[in-house]
Amino acid sequence: MGSKRHLGKLSPSKAREMIRTNEWTGPTAGISNGYTQANLVVVTKDLAYDLLLFCQRNPRPCPLLDVTEVGKPVPLMTAPGSDLRTDLPRYRIWKDGFLVDEPLDMTDYWRDDMVAFLLGCSFTFEGALLEAGIPVRHIEEGRNVPMYITNMECRRAGSLHGPMVVSMRPVPHSMVSRAVMITGRFPSVHGSPVHIGDPSVIGIREINDPDFGDRVTLKEGEVPVFWACGVTPQAALMKTRPPFAITHSPGHMFITDKRDLDYAIF
Amino acid sequence: MGSKRHLGKLSPSKAREMIRTNEWTGPTAGISNGYTQANLVVVTKDLAYDLLLFCQRNPRPCPLLDVTEVGKPVPLMTAPGSDLRTDLPRYRIWKDGFLVDEPLDMTDYWRDDMVAFLLGCSFTFEGALLEAGIPVRHIEEGRNVPMYITNMECRRAGSLHGPMVVSMRPVPHSMVSRAVMITGRFPSVHGSPVHIGDPSVIGIREINDPDFGDRVTLKEGEVPVFWACGVTPQAALMKTRPPFAITHSPGHMFITDKRDLDYAIF
Repeated sequence: MGSKRHLGKLSPSKAREMIRTNEWTGPTAGISNGYTQANLVVVTKDLAYDLLLFCQRNPRPCPLLDVTEVGKPVPLMTAPGSDLRTDLPRYRIWKDGFLVDEPLDMTDYWRDDMVAFLLGCSFTFEGALLEAGIPVRHIEEGRNVPMYITNMECRRAGSLHGPMVVSMRPVPHSMVSRAVMITGRFPSVHGSPVHIGDPSVIGIREINDPDFGDRVTLKEGEVPVFWACGVTPQAALMKTRPPFAITHSPGHMFITDKRDLDYAIF
Repeated sequence: MGSKRHLGKLSPSKAREMIRTNEWTGPTAGISNGYTQANLVVVTKDLAYDLLLFCQRNPRPCPLLDVTEVGKPVPLMTAPGSDLRTDLPRYRIWKDGFLVDEPLDMTDYWRDDMVAFLLGCSFTFEGALLEAGIPVRHIEEGRNVPMYITNMECRRAGSLHGPMVVSMRPVPHSMVSRAVMITGRFPSVHGSPVHIGDPSVIGIREINDPDFGDRVTLKEGEVPVFWACGVTPQAALMKTRPPFAITHSPGHMFITDKRDLDYAIF
């Protein structure tokens, strides 16, 4: 299996093979560094139009990287040689909005009427922040990024609606502009911040009490900076309590063949 | 009705009113300067998913600005107070892929099962090029921009497929980088060029014989620069010969409430 360092250098296809054979069943952060990881949301065809439109109308929280053909579990744009039923370490199976299983493989759950959506995730821009010398606190502290439900409503699409969820990273005052410019180069993976500073402006009452993930230390001289978060479409979807849906398990992402820099603006 | 100069200063809602009442029935170039104009494609709901997916998979030629609710002719994101059935100067009505009418108003053709798509158009980035001192030849020569069918296949989505169509503008050698950087700021309206230089590389045999639009003069020391073109999705759609579709008449665009700069990267 090798060290974390070894994992970082694996090609995406080798990493997916290790995951497919259940040689690796853990979170994917740090695997195949430089390659883009993605969130997975699988819905039935009758919900796919609403989800596609929701993503089109809310591109900051829902940066769509790939949509499969109906019934085909292969993401042709981002990893044509892969199989989404087996190539993520862990899945969540949802029935009527309730979590009913968390298997290592979803082959038994896949159906002919399903469409898989891959959405960009913040791992991509966090790599760019780190390379630019901007600290990423939750990585330093070995925690999950703190996420908050805001008072900013997404644009509705059919049955899908809900508030925007944001993630927060503390940034030293002097580096805020730099953080904006760097993440702004990656519009396909949330882009520049949606808010900088006073959390109450976007409806966050207590910065130390995130709605999802873990709290992190906000130091003297640091500004809380908020980016749109990929949890948003999942939250909107679950509100509608669809009869059947599949997602990745948090942190257990899909590793694409695309490089992070493929999503920098061209 | 007033002069062209007067038209340039009209607010989008005033301009649309003038168009709605058939006080203006001509092309929209030069009206409400600084506001974004859009291409219109209307299809029935059963084709809307494929068209939405085609746009998602081919964002350079198909920059989607707005999609209406089924049966509702109001583009909520780009001009909530407007009506797409009346607010464009001229429409094209298509039956089985054939042009059957070119009315000033499409109210009689609109149906409850229709979805309207608004796509970005190159007027937006041409304004930015002109402001940056880069000549736009077809405007100088009072012609339509030359467009070419390329050998670059779009990514298929369901029934929709076809080659990418590009538009060409000659740019002086010394200004090519500048033209790339400036249009690259507008990814929602085709973005940076898809090709620079030798037309044969993308399957264009004769630069003086465009597939659509007019030929323009290519001067000594100028490079042909090619951008993805909004004719692409219409061409793909018409290949499938849908029983019923509606588009704008060429050059007779929809004027949104959005400013061109709203589509510059943030």
